[in-house]
This record gives sequence, C-alpha cells and structure tokens, in this order.
Amino acid sequence: MEQPATTRQQLIQRLRAMGNKLRIDSVISTTEAGSGHPTSCLSAADLMAAVFFHAMRFDVANPHNGTNDRFVLSKGHAAPILYAAWAEAGAFPVERLKTLRQFGSDLEGHPTPRLPWVDVATGSLGQGLSNGAGMALNAKYLDHIDYRVYVLLGDGEAAEGSVWEAAEFASYYKLDNLVGIIDVNGLGQSQQTMYGHHTDVYRRRFEAFGWHALSIDGHDMDQIVDALDEAAGVKDKPTMIVASTIKGKGISFVADLNGWHGKALKKGEETDRALAEIRSNDLVTEGLKMLPPTGRTANEVIEGAAAAKIEVGEHYKTGESVATREAYGEALARLGARNPLVVVLDGDVKNSTFSEKFLKAFPDRFFECFIAEQNMVGTAAGLSAMGKIPFASTFACFLTRAFDQIRMGAISLSNLKLCGSHAGVSIGEDGPSQMALEDLAMMRAVETATVLYPSDAISTEYAVQLSAANHGIFYIRTSRPKTPVIYKRDDRFEIGKCKVIRTSKDDRITVVAAGVTLFEALKAYDELKGQGISIRVVDIFSVKPIDVKGLESAGRETGNLILTVEDHSLGGIGDAVAGAVSQAGIRVHELLVSELPRSGKPEELLKAYGIDSSAIISAVKSLVAAG
Amino acid sequence: MEQPATTRQQLIQRLRAMGNKLRIDSVISTTEAGSGHPTSCLSAADLMAAVFFHAMRFDVANPHNGTNDRFVLSKGHAAPILYAAWAEAGAFPVERLKTLRQFGSDLEGHPTPRLPWVDVATGSLGQGLSNGAGMALNAKYLDHIDYRVYVLLGDGEAAEGSVWEAAEFASYYKLDNLVGIIDVNGLGQSQQTMYGHHTDVYRRRFEAFGWHALSIDGHDMDQIVDALDEAAGVKDKPTMIVASTIKGKGISFVADLNGWHGKALKKGEETDRALAEIRSNDLVTEGLKMLPPTGRTANEVIEGAAAAKIEVGEHYKTGESVATREAYGEALARLGARNPLVVVLDGDVKNSTFSEKFLKAFPDRFFECFIAEQNMVGTAAGLSAMGKIPFASTFACFLTRAFDQIRMGAISLSNLKLCGSHAGVSIGEDGPSQMALEDLAMMRAVETATVLYPSDAISTEYAVQLSAANHGIFYIRTSRPKTPVIYKRDDRFEIGKCKVIRTSKDDRITVVAAGVTLFEALKAYDELKGQGISIRVVDIFSVKPIDVKGLESAGRETGNLILTVEDHSLGGIGDAVAGAVSQAGIRVHELLVSELPRSGKPEELLKAYGIDSSAIISAVKSLVAAG
Repeated sequence: MEQPATTRQQLIQRLRAMGNKLRIDSVISTTEAGSGHPTSCLSAADLMAAVFFHAMRFDVANPHNGTNDRFVLSKGHAAPILYAAWAEAGAFPVERLKTLRQFGSDLEGHPTPRLPWVDVATGSLGQGLSNGAGMALNAKYLDHIDYRVYVLLGDGEAAEGSVWEAAEFASYYKLDNLVGIIDVNGLGQSQQTMYGHHTDVYRRRFEAFGWHALSIDGHDMDQIVDALDEAAGVKDKPTMIVASTIKGKGISFVADLNGWHGKALKKGEETDRALAEIRSNDLVTEGLKMLPPTGRTANEVIEGAAAAKIEVGEHYKTGESVATREAYGEALARLGARNPLVVVLDGDVKNSTFSEKFLKAFPDRFFECFIAEQNMVGTAAGLSAMGKIPFASTFACFLTRAFDQIRMGAISLSNLKLCGSHAGVSIGEDGPSQMALEDLAMMRAVETATVLYPSDAISTEYAVQLSAANHGIFYIRTSRPKTPVIYKRDDRFEIGKCKVIRTSKDDRITVVAAGVTLFEALKAYDELKGQGISIRVVDIFSVKPIDVKGLESAGRETGNLILTVEDHSLGGIGDAVAGAVSQAGIRVHELLVSELPRSGKPEELLKAYGIDSSAIISAVKSLVAAG
Repeated sequence: MEQPATTRQQLIQRLRAMGNKLRIDSVISTTEAGSGHPTSCLSAADLMAAVFFHAMRFDVANPHNGTNDRFVLSKGHAAPILYAAWAEAGAFPVERLKTLRQFGSDLEGHPTPRLPWVDVATGSLGQGLSNGAGMALNAKYLDHIDYRVYVLLGDGEAAEGSVWEAAEFASYYKLDNLVGIIDVNGLGQSQQTMYGHHTDVYRRRFEAFGWHALSIDGHDMDQIVDALDEAAGVKDKPTMIVASTIKGKGISFVADLNGWHGKALKKGEETDRALAEIRSNDLVTEGLKMLPPTGRTANEVIEGAAAAKIEVGEHYKTGESVATREAYGEALARLGARNPLVVVLDGDVKNSTFSEKFLKAFPDRFFECFIAEQNMVGTAAGLSAMGKIPFASTFACFLTRAFDQIRMGAISLSNLKLCGSHAGVSIGEDGPSQMALEDLAMMRAVETATVLYPSDAISTEYAVQLSAANHGIFYIRTSRPKTPVIYKRDDRFEIGKCKVIRTSKDDRITVVAAGVTLFEALKAYDELKGQGISIRVVDIFSVKPIDVKGLESAGRETGNLILTVEDHSLGGIGDAVAGAVSQAGIRVHELLVSELPRSGKPEELLKAYGIDSSAIISAVKSLVAAG
C-alpha cells in the first residue's frame, strides 16, 4: 500500500522532512529534560522516519491490535526519538514530549511498557533483537499472521553476545518477518565503537549468521526506503539493514564528535543554534502518516485461557518417588492441553528439565533455543508481549546467564515463567559449575518476581498452575533427586503461603525448608521425636512473597525460634525468613551452603556443607538447649 | 622443536595411539564413577592427543611455570579426557583417574583449579574462549612472552553469545597466540546441535569475526597436526580449527547416537565390549611426551606487589563533594602506580565508572572491552589465572549480564575485582533499566565473594586498597551522585567491619545504611536529634562478610532495634543484617526499594520508594514508639 496520492519523489521528500521533525522533537525534549541522548537520536532520525511512516503498518489508536507490525528500539537510550515518532504518528500530543524523564511521565529515560506503544522495555543494550525474534516467532509459528517486526539497534550494542544469539536463532527459525536495522554511527559512549563506520563488518557477520544483509547510507532516504522495500520481499531469512550514520547528524557542532554521548544541549543559545540548523531543512510532512494494517486478521483472543486449570493431585500416590523436575514437565504438558497460550522454551536440556514432555505433547508450541539462555529469555519476553504465556527452562545455575534479560523482563512487565532445575549441591557428582546456589537470591531481587520452590510432585503441580494463572514473572525451582510425594489432592498451595507439615503444641523450634532439605528436616523430626524433642516443620513453598504471618505464628508458638535449612547460598530462604520475622523478635538461625562445594555424592555433599538431617539435629539441640 | 628421533609418520601413528589411550582412560574413569560424559570425551580424543603431545610446550612438573603454553577445556563436561591427558603426560598416576567424581578427589565432574593443571573452572559452556583470550592478552600485551593458548570448545556451546564476544575481542586485539578448536560432534545434550556437522557454518562465522579459520576432519591425525602447525604461523589473528568429529568415536554402539549424552557405560559387559573395540587399535605411544617450553623467559615475578598500598585520606578534604565512582577511578590510578599487577577493564562506560583515570595514567594496562560484559569478566578471570589483578567495571546493573561468569570466577578461585557504578534509584532520570537494584543480592550469593559498599571518597579508597591486597572476588558498589567526604585519614576500614558514625548512650535505635542512604540517615539523625530522639548511625561498608559482632553490639545497645535502609531490592543490606543479628534477638526492620521504579529526579525517587530521610524518620518514630 502506497501513501495516498504521493509520488516516490514526494514520499522521499516528506520522509526526509519527518526525519528532521523527529530531530527537532528530540532536541527540544532532551533540552527540556536537561539530560538524555540527543545525538544518539539524531543518527537514527532518517531511519526512524522511514520505518514508521513508510514501512510499518500500525493502528496508532490501538497499539495492542494483534495485526499491527511491531517496533522495538533496542538502542533504548534513543528513547526521545521513539516518543517523537509516536507523537508525530498521532499517538499522543507532541507537546507531551516535554514531560520526558519527569517523575510520573510515561516518557521515561529509556522506554518501558508503561507507555502503551512500547511492547518491551529496552535500555540494557543487546536485548531487543531477542525480543523481536520472540514477536516474529509468534507471528510465523503461533498466530500465523503476517505482521512484521522491526528492531532498531545501535552499533555499539552489536558487541553484546546476546545479539548473536538472537541472530542465530532468527535465521534457524527462518524469521523472514523480522527486520533489523543497525544505526552505525560509529561512536560508543566513551570512544569509537569496535569498527567505526565499517558497515561491511556487520554485514558480513549477519550474512555468516544466515541473514539477508545489506549496507546502506543511513541518511540517504532513497537507500533507506529501497532497503526496507527489499526486506519485505525476502523469504526464509531475516533481514539486517546496516546503515552508516553520523551521531548528532543535523547539528554541525556536535556531529560525529566524541564527548557528546548522553548529553543534552544547553537551554538557550546552544539549543537555539542547533534547532535553527535543523529547521533550515524542508519540514513539510503533509499527508505523511502511519498506514493501518488493513486486510490482516489476527487469531481470536482466547478469553479465559489463563484461568484454565489442571487437576492437581490426581496423578501421584503418596510416597511415590518423583523428582520435582519431572513433575514440572508432566504438569506443563497437562497444562498445555488446557491452555493454548502456553508455549515452552528450553536451552538444550529438555531431557533434564523434563520440558520434553511438553514437546512430545505439543511440538508446535515448543521452541528449542539451544545453549543460549539470554536469547531464550529475551525471546520469551517477546512472546509474552504478544500475549503468550512462555515457560522457559534450563538448569537453575544457567539462568544466571540471563539475569539481565530477566531483570529487563520485570521492567517490561513480562508474563514470563522460568523454571530452573538441578538446584544446589544435591545434584552431586557434576560439581559446582552445575549447582545453582545463587538462583533464589537472584530471583528474589527481581522486583515483581514470584519465587516458588516446590518439594514434591503435587506442590510442583500447584507451582505450575499458579505461575500460569497469574500475570508476571514466576520462578519455579526444581530439584534433581527423586523425592517422595507427601501432599494430597486437597493440600492447597498458594502464593505467599507456607505449609506447616509437622506440628504439635510441644514444638520447641520451627524448622523451615524446601526441596531436598525439607526431607532432611522430616528425617530430623523423626529422630528428634524419638529423643523427646518436638519440632515444627514448615515447607516454605512461596519464597517470595513470603508468608510473614504464617512464619511469625509458627515462630511465636515455638519459643520464638526458627531454623532455616536450604540447598543455597546467602540471600535465599534463610535471609528471606530472617528479613520477614526478625521484626517480630523471632530469632532465625540459618543453615546454608557457605563455601565453594565440590563433586561428590548428594548425601555426602548435604552432610559436608551442613544442610542434612544430622546438621539440623545438632543445630536444633544446641538452639533448644540455649533456649 | 620436533619429537626426538621421530619421523612424521611415526608421530602421526603415536598420536593416533595416544588418542585411543585417552579414549580408554575416559571410558574406564567414567564407568568407575558411574556418571560423566564419555561420548563427549571420545569425539575430542584425537584433538586432545595432538594438542597435548604435539602442539603444546609445557613443563608438566611445574604447571604454574609462566612460560608454559595454556590449555582451557571450554567444553568442561569432557573433563575425564582432560584428566586423562594430564595423567598420560605424567602429571599424576593414570591410576588416579579412577577417583573421578569422588568426594575429595580433585578430579571433579567438571574441571576446577583444585587440580593444579587447571587454570580456570569450566562446565558452564561458552566461557573458555574468554578465559583463553585473557591469558593470550597477558602474553601479548603484558608479559610480552610467546606462550600460546589453546581452547577446546564444543559445537553446542558455540550457540552461546559469550563465544562471539570472545571472538570479536580476540580479533580486535589481534591475539595470534590464541588457538581455538571446535569439536563439532554434531550432537547436543537433547538433540542435534543447530548445524550438525556443517563445519563450514562455524568456519565462515569465525572468518567474519576476523579469525583465521579452517575446517578439518577431527579424527584425521594428519589434518589435525597440519592445522595446529598452520595455526602456529598465523600472524595478527587468532586461529579457529573447526573439526568435524563423531560423538562416541571408537565405540560402534554409541557412536553418533542421540541419547548417549552424559551417560556412563555400564560396568561389566558393556564397558568391556567398548574397551575391546578401542583396544583393537594400535596403542603404542612410545616416546610421546609433552615438550617443555625451552628458551622462553617469563617476566620476573614481582614479589610483594599485591601488598603495595596507596595513601588513603590524603586527597580529600572533609565535606568536599565527590562521587564514590570518581573516587574509585582516582584510587585505581594511584594504585596502578604502586602495583604493576593491576590491570583494568571496562565495558565502554569508563567515563561514567571513572576507570578512564587509570587508562590515562597507564594506557598499556587498560583494555577496553566494549559493550560485552560476559567477555569482560571471562577475560579478567583469564588474566587473574596468569597472576594479574584485574579490576573490571561497568554500571552495576550490567554486571548482571556476567553473573554466570562471576559465578564461574568464584569456582575458578579467580582474583577478580569488580566495580559496579550507578547503584540504585539514585541515578535518577535514566530510569529502571539503568538502576542496579539486584547487585548486592547477586554478589552476596557468590560463594567466596567479598562485597564492599563505600559511602564516601575515603572509604572508597579503602575498598580499592582492600580489594587489591586480598585474594579472591571483590565487589565494590559505587554511586552516581556526589556525596560529602565524611571520613578522615585515620578512619580505618576493614573487611568484615562496619563503622559506627553517630553514637550516644541515649540511642533508641540503630540505623544501618550505605551509599546515598547513609546521608539520608545522617539527615534523619539531625532532624530526630532536634526532636529529642537519638539514633545510632552505622555505615555497613562491608556487606559481606558482615560485621555480626559490631551490628549485634550496636543493636543491643539501642533497645535491640535496627532499621536498615538501602537503595536496593530484597537480598541486600536489610536481609544481610537480619540474617546476621536476628539470632541474637535483635529486631530488624528493612527499608528498601520494593516496587518497580521509574524515571525521576534522584530525590523524588528516594522519597517515592521510601528510602529517604523522611521515610527513616517516620519508621524510627513508629518503631521507637512501639518499643
């Protein structure tokens, strides 16, 4: 579809004018804010004008219209020009750009989905291409609709390995609906980028990664329009447009100079001079607007899918030995049958995390992400932005690889479900590199994340069910060893609730645990009972939010004493419990892994690092004796 | 130097025999252990034989001889063949291979430097090339010595973005002393890798990333030897040998089959049959040994360099406004003059972290790592393995990108110093993507890490000094805003010690803080004093190890009440303090950032998220009133 009554020449002229309008908007808003990255906007201005007002099809009044093309500003520090483009497209008044970076304004320093025209937060560089790949994957394999996804990257961020993970993933899945554009302005924050204006370096690399790639002059509107048109015709490959640009383009006294990164122009003479230079160009954009996605039909929205439930507790017998990781895969596969929005990703360990059970049941909704955890999580965030409920799994220790993507997922308000298997030293002989001892601390620190740590197959079913039914980031920690099923169908598990599983009025102390250490606590319970010492045993289940009330009342009823025991380092269950109940005057003692572990048998390691039943027994005895 | 009295033909024959010996060793040790990855060893056997017994120059009795070539097994799950190669080279008795994976044995499931022939721990895939790049960087730019670094990768791990970060870094720095070998066996853990045996994909990618790259048959000893010889002659580029191999090569009933990843052969008939097949080959390796690095001279070891001190407290006046991030750069530059082992890395934010001060003073010991934090930390670990003291800095939030590398750095026993600037919401307008709210939790969870959080310029000098003078992972958290200098030359700061900065016998509560919140606490102190409420103010400084005694005694003397206030999420100062003192019956209340923040002025944000002086004042009043 062409712009109405516009010749090619007129179109080019108007797009050029729009580029300059976006430059003006970006300078005005950053000067008003007194901070921001105007020069990084200026290099991208012509590219932005062409993508928004020539290539994209978008229903501006309905940003969440499922047939819209998508745009991701991977170089998130150029946020002012993104806001300018949306304002010029009619999303909101241009005047509002002056609220940039103000407290309460949705025009934040870097884009966040608080602004409805933003799908994913950006600003930590190198993540946008993964987000875009997730959106493109959704169009091609799930919704079967022909929207396109545009991602604008900076050249500096092409140094991030996550970009190359996204690149290999997008070509592996033949995402020909994904178009990347690199704004090669040649200058990083503190010096020239690795390759300056050598656009061929990027072009050759993307070609080697299986992309259709072309180098252009990013300020030549003819070349930009041609490149975008060419991209639209490429089949079975994503396209990367490598555009040579000038940082600060349009303002003679900042253009292509180091020292201008992330610096607003001074109000008054400096800004006025800059604006006068840009305004000396043709600014007539008459008739230029975003074209709507006519003729496309999105899948119907599946109402209530998220509320779909699995039957919990029907598949396991009490006492049966089942690893929570296996119960995870099993629950996921059953959930898949009820909820068509659930999609599953894994990092080539699906036979260990047991997400392969979902693959077997629903191969069309499973995506192998290979050994590239950053892209897996970034892709999941992209799928989430398109309304899917992605569950991504790998060994819990390897989720540390994607911590920044998880953090950005929180800022993106993503509906992201993560499962980390092989928690702690109880994995045994594989040794410390495979032991997750930091994952609970990592996930607790993620604002908005919910952290669930099931101990048996039935509480794992609850964890999966709760994760799918509630929006936001959920983390499920599963374990390698088989553990007995201890819960029943009518044992309900809730977010923010722990479960008291051994209790009497004679209890001298509360022991809080989860996963393998819960079973050590139960062993300790039996042994101590034989010795006349009664302990309360609590399954924490919901590490975050934590059950302050439940833990407080357990602690109060057991002499204000709590002992925590966990297969984890600092910042996990112990600290969570201490942080929650110490204000009530309850004393919390922590057993945790506090040194670098080594290879060995699981039981040897639980003992060596002081988190087995014997460690619990001796801690309980000394604490109870001390009163 | 040639193997003594050996024709080319004899050499090839013996190397082939050695490959099979290594196969036998790997099968025997994994069968004995009952777990491990024999098939991943078998694909690499011929490559390992040629690297160890033809290419490398190594003084086996002195693994830390500074003139030795280095070897990194990036595909760490093939540990059994690494141990086999060292044993066959005479490092330790072959018989000891049978202790593989046993508790107490240094032959762990994945390699760790507990074994002296291992420089860096591997097992989290995709990190070895960065480690190797750090070692090669050391040889070429710091020690000026001609040792070479060999890194063996798997094809599956080439999907990790960190591999491509290392690839771009190594070619940027022209590391022609770095030789990578990819063991392309085509099978991942759960299925075929992305490209199976298409070695050309990897070759083209490495070429595009600036490497000399060649494809070979990884079981053709002639080709392997030729490739290694060719690599030795390449100038100004690293070399990647892409070797097509068969997973399980040498055992007909496992070769090239899915389902055999990470599985030991069964003891008895299965193992016997496998060994018989391998033993049917020529196993005569007579005369084959690792050749020593004759004729090389390493730099003299600089004794006592680590003890070099900077004068602390001489550069700042009380009350002067200095951001801790700037004090960090300043201290580092001064330390550089005293300690030649200090080298500095940054991720293109050196003008924000102020590591540029070191660059200006010592350009030869500064390495720009561009926007690739994983490789920055992996490279630093490699430098550390070669005896340097690397300080690596970026925005604290972007260190999350390298969490897995940091975690592996701990397992590698690296002497790694990390500085994260721009902590918390106090960065202001840039918004949540740039705010580190998880870094303290992340670093506390790293076993062996020390976490220091200085509040003024002088305590920052101490943090830098302590980090350099003590082995291990140190994390220094710095802040963006300028803060007044409050300490003096004779205020000593120590690891594991907090500092009481306002105290009287009338104190009703202890307020624990650091960084920007320490100054909010001081404001609150003044205001509360005016209202007749006396509070104790403690600068935590050492977040880990935490000063249990100091905090306990402060808490005890102030009605068993502590209030923590931090510009961080869960798992930071508050949880650390609660975890440390709750067992003493001290009640800890935490003020922290507990929701997703947004852009705004620093003071607006401190207020909005409840960590400013007014929040402290109101918390103190309600806590003191409640008693």
